[in-house]
Amino acid sequence: MKNRIGIIGGGQLGRMLGFEAKKMGFIVAVMDATPHSPAGQVVDLQLEGGYSDPEMTEELAEISDFLTVEIEHINTETLKKLVKQGIKVNPSPETIEIIKDKFVQKQFLLKHKIPTAPYAAVIPSETLGKRNRGISNTRADKGIEDLSTALEMTIEEIAKKFTYPIILKKRFDAFDGRGNYLIQKRIDIRKALEKLGTESLYVEKVLPFVKELAVVIARDMKGNIAAYPVVETIHKNNICHIVIAPAKISSKLQKKAQTLAKKVMKQIKGAGVFAIEMFLDKKGNVLVNEIAPRVHNSGHYTIEACYTSQFEQHIRAITGLPLGSTAMKVPAAVMINILGERKGEVDVKHLEKVLHMPQVSVHIYGKAETKPERKIGHITVLDETVEKAYKKAIKARKMLHI
Amino acid sequence: MKNRIGIIGGGQLGRMLGFEAKKMGFIVAVMDATPHSPAGQVVDLQLEGGYSDPEMTEELAEISDFLTVEIEHINTETLKKLVKQGIKVNPSPETIEIIKDKFVQKQFLLKHKIPTAPYAAVIPSETLGKRNRGISNTRADKGIEDLSTALEMTIEEIAKKFTYPIILKKRFDAFDGRGNYLIQKRIDIRKALEKLGTESLYVEKVLPFVKELAVVIARDMKGNIAAYPVVETIHKNNICHIVIAPAKISSKLQKKAQTLAKKVMKQIKGAGVFAIEMFLDKKGNVLVNEIAPRVHNSGHYTIEACYTSQFEQHIRAITGLPLGSTAMKVPAAVMINILGERKGEVDVKHLEKVLHMPQVSVHIYGKAETKPERKIGHITVLDETVEKAYKKAIKARKMLHI
Repeated sequence: MKNRIGIIGGGQLGRMLGFEAKKMGFIVAVMDATPHSPAGQVVDLQLEGGYSDPEMTEELAEISDFLTVEIEHINTETLKKLVKQGIKVNPSPETIEIIKDKFVQKQFLLKHKIPTAPYAAVIPSETLGKRNRGISNTRADKGIEDLSTALEMTIEEIAKKFTYPIILKKRFDAFDGRGNYLIQKRIDIRKALEKLGTESLYVEKVLPFVKELAVVIARDMKGNIAAYPVVETIHKNNICHIVIAPAKISSKLQKKAQTLAKKVMKQIKGAGVFAIEMFLDKKGNVLVNEIAPRVHNSGHYTIEACYTSQFEQHIRAITGLPLGSTAMKVPAAVMINILGERKGEVDVKHLEKVLHMPQVSVHIYGKAETKPERKIGHITVLDETVEKAYKKAIKARKMLHI
Repeated sequence: MKNRIGIIGGGQLGRMLGFEAKKMGFIVAVMDATPHSPAGQVVDLQLEGGYSDPEMTEELAEISDFLTVEIEHINTETLKKLVKQGIKVNPSPETIEIIKDKFVQKQFLLKHKIPTAPYAAVIPSETLGKRNRGISNTRADKGIEDLSTALEMTIEEIAKKFTYPIILKKRFDAFDGRGNYLIQKRIDIRKALEKLGTESLYVEKVLPFVKELAVVIARDMKGNIAAYPVVETIHKNNICHIVIAPAKISSKLQKKAQTLAKKVMKQIKGAGVFAIEMFLDKKGNVLVNEIAPRVHNSGHYTIEACYTSQFEQHIRAITGLPLGSTAMKVPAAVMINILGERKGEVDVKHLEKVLHMPQVSVHIYGKAETKPERKIGHITVLDETVEKAYKKAIKARKMLHI
């Protein structure tokens, strides 16, 4: 019987994948450098190794029938090698490779005519003298179309073209607000470069948007696709803060966003759950902001609110099982993140106050240390309307201290 | 921060308690003799020891802020000692003690005027000559009222009084159909005694019932009580087979059963989730069949169907947190057990067929070995009506082989 799952990464996403995989009877191993990681606590085995450790990845593959990831910042070369050896890796390493380089991801969207905000590559400071050459990014597998090259400009040149504000982004290892810097005017450029370094950067034009939306969407091994309802996401310091499900938009826009998510899915390979983050502008245009090749913060509400959670859905998808219903079993849900407020040991204060409120679920991820902006847990509120759920979620979050 | 939970027992109930406790951020240890037990796989630590092992129980208490059980067949003497030392043990060891001796449980119900089927103690074969003395059951703690004595009769004498059919039951360690024997006529007595032994037995009158019902009910540390909807349970060979939620009975009967469950709760001590199993006769009388001092098979449906699952509810109750909403978030749910069909390694066949059906959840408990009548997992179906859910549950169970 093939029932062993290996997950690269042992954070909260791996933990919630672990719950669902164990619920269905799978044997689960995770790989993470932090001993007794959030996911390691709730599965059969943790291998201690960094996300990109090639030997440890191979070791994990050896004890797994199905290999997956909870993070995209991993060693795709090793994964591609494992696929060649016949290991079932999902999502596909090629997909992860396109997505983990956020600039390549943008090139990919452009190539497939998927609407996205204008962007441009930034010339590295040390090559300022040698303009207009391809970015010196070597790619091992030449079988994959190389999307990593671009005409490069200085930030000032880009700003002239796009007009301020612009956002400077790191191509690699950027998530949860780290790796982004909003440049409102010329004087911010220096601070931005101090924060993000001068290598592997690109710039996006900041488009005025009405709402940020997200569609969590899954594909099984047979190619069937199932999309969850469109949700609204509210960010704070570039970190996902609140998710409103379903988004308060017209059914026409709901459909438009889901169609766009499906268009993205047609272009990327592999089974599993993906999240497509989008912008909705005031003209009703929907643009793709970013793709995540994994379960996503914008889908945490599905645990309580949907017939199949995004985590069970991912486990079904990567193990060759059919997808489950993505419908909501309640009218409305709002999720709010619990981010750390100080540095120190995790100690949840006033949990009992929050749990006095009906239809409120609190998730704490089992991290040893809290620090400002670290995701320590989340709260999901179910209610008859998103307005009611939203009000309760805000109230609940304020009560809790961590 | 007090956040360490110890659970005595590492079976599927401990596993599902573990999921919820970990979800809420607790550190969880379980105690079970089977290495890598169903619960041990999903929590921080397993101590290897039998349910009644006093030293191991004390070791578990040492690393726990809150101690609880997933099974009643345990060493209550050790637990009482730990309570005296200030350890928070819930449910109360006194309650477990009353319930784990099924004859004492009956005496307890009688004493508190809680309707229950007539019963009588069976005289042990070796004391046939010395009639009418108390059963020689020594009880260490004389502080607790001794309910263990009774006027004893032979099975034949009891049968004459009650008229056949009667059911012969073991007082201790009986669950999931083991420890019960239906005596239809005099000739069955010999077979019954061969099966159950001749010690610590009692007899119940078999009452004709229309339905079997159950109420899962919880009490928090402040004494607040919350009851789940009344469900119908269908047994097969004395093992819980199907649970229909809510039971198809009048709202008057719903209320009657919940009132009865609350009456039972008033008499038993301690925080936690309890299950009150009941008979409904054709005259509309509701009688208590048995009490379980723990989460229960009849409450598994709450994972998908209720705002707070029975497992989260128990964790809230025993850690001093307030109880959550017991309401259903869907109109109907049916749970069907997956019992083993053969002896051997667990190998779930045709899971993919079952998962093609929408709104069907499959739970597999991670047991290494399957055998006939062993609980290997369960299926929960959510639907608009219990009739639809029931049909789907039967269909789903038939597809699966284990």
